[in-house]
Amino acid sequence: MTHPTIIRPADHAVYSPAKMGKSTIFASPRLLVGLNAFEPGQQHALHAHAGQDKVYHVIEGEGLFLLDGHELAMQAGDLLVAPEGVAHGVRNSGSGRLLVLAILAPAPHR
Amino acid sequence: MTHPTIIRPADHAVYSPAKMGKSTIFASPRLLVGLNAFEPGQQHALHAHAGQDKVYHVIEGEGLFLLDGHELAMQAGDLLVAPEGVAHGVRNSGSGRLLVLAILAPAPHR
Repeated sequence: MTHPTIIRPADHAVYSPAKMGKSTIFASPRLLVGLNAFEPGQQHALHAHAGQDKVYHVIEGEGLFLLDGHELAMQAGDLLVAPEGVAHGVRNSGSGRLLVLAILAPAPHR
Repeated sequence: MTHPTIIRPADHAVYSPAKMGKSTIFASPRLLVGLNAFEPGQQHALHAHAGQDKVYHVIEGEGLFLLDGHELAMQAGDLLVAPEGVAHGVRNSGSGRLLVLAILAPAPHR
């Protein structure tokens, strides 16, 4: 591998005024480590991944996470697991930016 | 699934005076989300996982991470990826506890 480097997730955030921003920190067939970046009011609509587990880890800000019909108020440091097939979504309900580490295993097909 | 709950990783830490403590937050065939908890001076010896990628995310404290022959000083919030087959290890070089989220995909066989 190339010289390994320490990753500070916030340095990789990509925000967009149009919709939730996405960026990729690491990708292999086994694992996708990415970031979902939400301006205030932006959301990621409910969806599910067949055969893929997802971990959300809030890096900055706060938001409402939907999981299996439940609404959960999460803030920096909180973690949530959406097992395969379970519907999930996110909405930035706060007044500041919301940055979420999103880990998917296995990675989506490209 | 059962009623989903927000996970605060530090609540799941298991420290041991004898050696690095391990605990599991989530496990499926696709993904293992666990915690490695180090008292000062404790370490996880160099090792590698064939066919499994690993993500380290420091939750609390600071430590030295070895990856592919390089030594990296990491602190809370920092993330490191050890791709499959790349040797990695951890040593708590600080004076306080070190808590690390360790994510493996796919999960180890049981």
